Amino acid sequence: MTETATRKRARGGGGAARRAERTAVRIESAKFIERNIPLFEVLNEEALEIIEYNADTLLEEVGVNFPENPKALQRWRDAGADVQGDRVRIPRGLARKLCETAPSSYTQHARNPERNVEIGGKSLVLAPVYGPPFVRDLEGGRRYATMEDFRNFVKLGYMSKWLHHSGGTVCEPTDVPVNKRHLDMLMAHMTLSDKPYMGSVTEPSRARDSVEMSEILFGKEFVQNNAVMTSLININSPMTFDDVMMGALEVYAEAGQGCIISPFIVGGAMAPVSVAGTLTQVLAEVLAGIAYSQLIRQGAPVIFGTFVSSIDMNSGAPTFGTPEASLILYGAGQLARRLGLPFRSGGSLCGSKLPDAQAAYETANTLNAALMGGVNFMLHSCGWLEGGLVSSYEKFVMDADQLGVLHRIAEGVKFDENAQAMDAIREVGPGGHYLGCAHTQANFKDAFWRTNVLDYKPFETWYEEGARDTQTLASIKVKKLLSDYQQPALDPAINEALAAYVAEKKASMPDAFT
Amino acid sequence: MTETATRKRARGGGGAARRAERTAVRIESAKFIERNIPLFEVLNEEALEIIEYNADTLLEEVGVNFPENPKALQRWRDAGADVQGDRVRIPRGLARKLCETAPSSYTQHARNPERNVEIGGKSLVLAPVYGPPFVRDLEGGRRYATMEDFRNFVKLGYMSKWLHHSGGTVCEPTDVPVNKRHLDMLMAHMTLSDKPYMGSVTEPSRARDSVEMSEILFGKEFVQNNAVMTSLININSPMTFDDVMMGALEVYAEAGQGCIISPFIVGGAMAPVSVAGTLTQVLAEVLAGIAYSQLIRQGAPVIFGTFVSSIDMNSGAPTFGTPEASLILYGAGQLARRLGLPFRSGGSLCGSKLPDAQAAYETANTLNAALMGGVNFMLHSCGWLEGGLVSSYEKFVMDADQLGVLHRIAEGVKFDENAQAMDAIREVGPGGHYLGCAHTQANFKDAFWRTNVLDYKPFETWYEEGARDTQTLASIKVKKLLSDYQQPALDPAINEALAAYVAEKKASMPDAFT
Repeated sequence: MTETATRKRARGGGGAARRAERTAVRIESAKFIERNIPLFEVLNEEALEIIEYNADTLLEEVGVNFPENPKALQRWRDAGADVQGDRVRIPRGLARKLCETAPSSYTQHARNPERNVEIGGKSLVLAPVYGPPFVRDLEGGRRYATMEDFRNFVKLGYMSKWLHHSGGTVCEPTDVPVNKRHLDMLMAHMTLSDKPYMGSVTEPSRARDSVEMSEILFGKEFVQNNAVMTSLININSPMTFDDVMMGALEVYAEAGQGCIISPFIVGGAMAPVSVAGTLTQVLAEVLAGIAYSQLIRQGAPVIFGTFVSSIDMNSGAPTFGTPEASLILYGAGQLARRLGLPFRSGGSLCGSKLPDAQAAYETANTLNAALMGGVNFMLHSCGWLEGGLVSSYEKFVMDADQLGVLHRIAEGVKFDENAQAMDAIREVGPGGHYLGCAHTQANFKDAFWRTNVLDYKPFETWYEEGARDTQTLASIKVKKLLSDYQQPALDPAINEALAAYVAEKKASMPDAFT
Repeated sequence: MTETATRKRARGGGGAARRAERTAVRIESAKFIERNIPLFEVLNEEALEIIEYNADTLLEEVGVNFPENPKALQRWRDAGADVQGDRVRIPRGLARKLCETAPSSYTQHARNPERNVEIGGKSLVLAPVYGPPFVRDLEGGRRYATMEDFRNFVKLGYMSKWLHHSGGTVCEPTDVPVNKRHLDMLMAHMTLSDKPYMGSVTEPSRARDSVEMSEILFGKEFVQNNAVMTSLININSPMTFDDVMMGALEVYAEAGQGCIISPFIVGGAMAPVSVAGTLTQVLAEVLAGIAYSQLIRQGAPVIFGTFVSSIDMNSGAPTFGTPEASLILYGAGQLARRLGLPFRSGGSLCGSKLPDAQAAYETANTLNAALMGGVNFMLHSCGWLEGGLVSSYEKFVMDADQLGVLHRIAEGVKFDENAQAMDAIREVGPGGHYLGCAHTQANFKDAFWRTNVLDYKPFETWYEEGARDTQTLASIKVKKLLSDYQQPALDPAINEALAAYVAEKKASMPDAFT
């Protein structure tokens, strides 16, 4: 029994909580990835030094904007920056110096302590798609997302063995007023899953609501002393830190909660068309953002974020799974590690409108790069479709299945006597086969990663079963998961308190849809 | 004007050849990849030494079989091996010592010297799918391959910018007698493409035919002094070198022609279920095979091959794009480099029956691993479907498009002043955008890899155009390529001599279909 679990039981009190825990169905859930393999690094020392020098030059000469945020400007002034209007010019070395107080890794706690995740170091934590206003499934096609879709995606995330994190805006529940949907979204993550989650960032007040609801779930003291959320703070590239996002950052950093500080870049539009130029801007932006988080509260847990796609120069459309995006990911990972910060990038990114081959090529290119490039927190690791406009039910389970591949590669190669298998080779000898040998019998169950979605059957069997493609197989899997879903146990008193908080907040303001 | 071209013109003689060259349509064809990025290596020094030690132990204690090949047994006896029956036990260190005379890289010449490829070192040469008895396309479905299909795939390979090599058995032309189809296949590669090709290995006599036809195409003396073929010699794993394959190897090695010496392994069936065990067997087999090639002729150009899939323990089906296969690829690449030998692995390997998302995930996993793992020669780099039973028209162009991604990643990151783009960032500044800035205007044309198949259009446009998936888009591309195809120029005298050779050979024996 872990400490957190004991605490929760003691607080939740009594037989109802215990009964709920006993009757809960246990789901299979992998621990976050701990890499036992090297990292892939494309930049040499000279290149890294050029980028770091150039990023500091940008911060000093060009500076960054913190519009409509006098408090932020005052913090920067106090720290020694040159502030004129909204523009903050940061003397060479200052931003890097300020980043030093950010932790190199942190634990994000889940209400089920078995699902706690370590963010940083050799870890890779996988969270689902974030942000799409649309959903798509095989039968229903593409349509606006609703709260029912949102709950379904939280359930799918909870049921997905290789997903460590419940995420945040798994889709935008467009049928709930904009100013109230964060409450329903948080309620869903807190009650339908026991994996860690993200807080709201669309208004500072909603970030405060996220903290308060977390205090109900975890206890106030626990939230004061531990990170229980990791939320997504986008930088408005190039070089602009808008007041709403900074307002949310201020709430979370002050509360000691985790944030991803992430440039959002379509290369060629929000950054130069060159890899080196984009990396320079990314570093300058992240340095300024993380420095600011530490001006809010020293030691606030943060992640060096890099969301980069390239652009199709014919149409202006963002493109994903491209070689330039992979090179930027590899380089940004190196820059993050030199700062001693956790790194966020990657995801099941694709531009395709359907969960077809294009979607899978683009996704696999990015997932592989994220594993090799040392990503510590991978948002969008399953379910992303159509440049992030769509959360796809089928792609969610297809991608989530592929995340198992990353787990296995990250384990590296075992070299004990059993793994060396010399006795097996001696036993079988030239011309034999290994299917029945003792070593195979003893090891086959765990020897190979197994898919839960893909089809390995012989052609004839597959044909007789309807010649189904991956999307069709995934659709069946989606239905099975949602039908098998059982809610994880939660102390009824906490559930009630959360519901009361949500009801009270909703009643306190009129609906707003913008 | 290169030396080879001059030679050919001089030999082919006269105006006809010159006229043919002048009127030929020039296709866009990328140079083979030269990696400007690091390699991904999963095994540490200790692990490598264990595998190398164990492989030598296997060769010494267990040995390998060279059945029905008294000449090979005599060669091994003469070299100091312990030969009993078909079994060859090789004293520790002997195989490695014999491998030392194999070149670390070699040039495979094409009849168009611009298409010569360098195999080894930092290079990556891409060749298409090899071996499937079936083809599939969108309209025709899955069916036995014919010679017409074969010619179509050679044409598609010739038209594919990112493919450096015409390959060998791009599909099995099942409508041509088994004992004669190699003649038509070689004729197709030699006349419908000007990229380098592979020779026949299904009978030693067919390997000799391949050499003789190459002598007609390149000139006898040229073939004696240069590698103009790279052919695929599979080892019958575990540890068996069958006489037909060895017979072909003997022909090619004696002629100084290149061969891939490649274990063919479904892990769990032809090798242990563990990665380390499989790597040990792979190394032992390749050591024995390459040592044998050098016993035939010192300096014969050879490639360290590794074809590995894992097995689905439920169905016994081979599986592709799996994490275990990637780990084996990475490890085998390290072993090959320690031997100073070119390395073959990877490919557009997949188990899917359709060119769908499963096919693309599996393919992308393997293509990425092949690039990172230091593959020098990638057979099956496009068009592979259904575990190698099917050559897919659509997947051929879909995969070939993705090969462009590998080219771009391999270039690495540029760091000149233009790439640093500091002026661009200064010009645009916080809150601006880069679409119209001077740096973007000057660089956008070459800034990003561009697909020729995938769809980047906005949803509405894509929907109005028929909501086409990747397979459908690829089908259109296939038709366009085949319709645009124009045969590369070839001296009519050579063409005639090749046709005469084929006709004479065909007339010399009755048809055989087994």
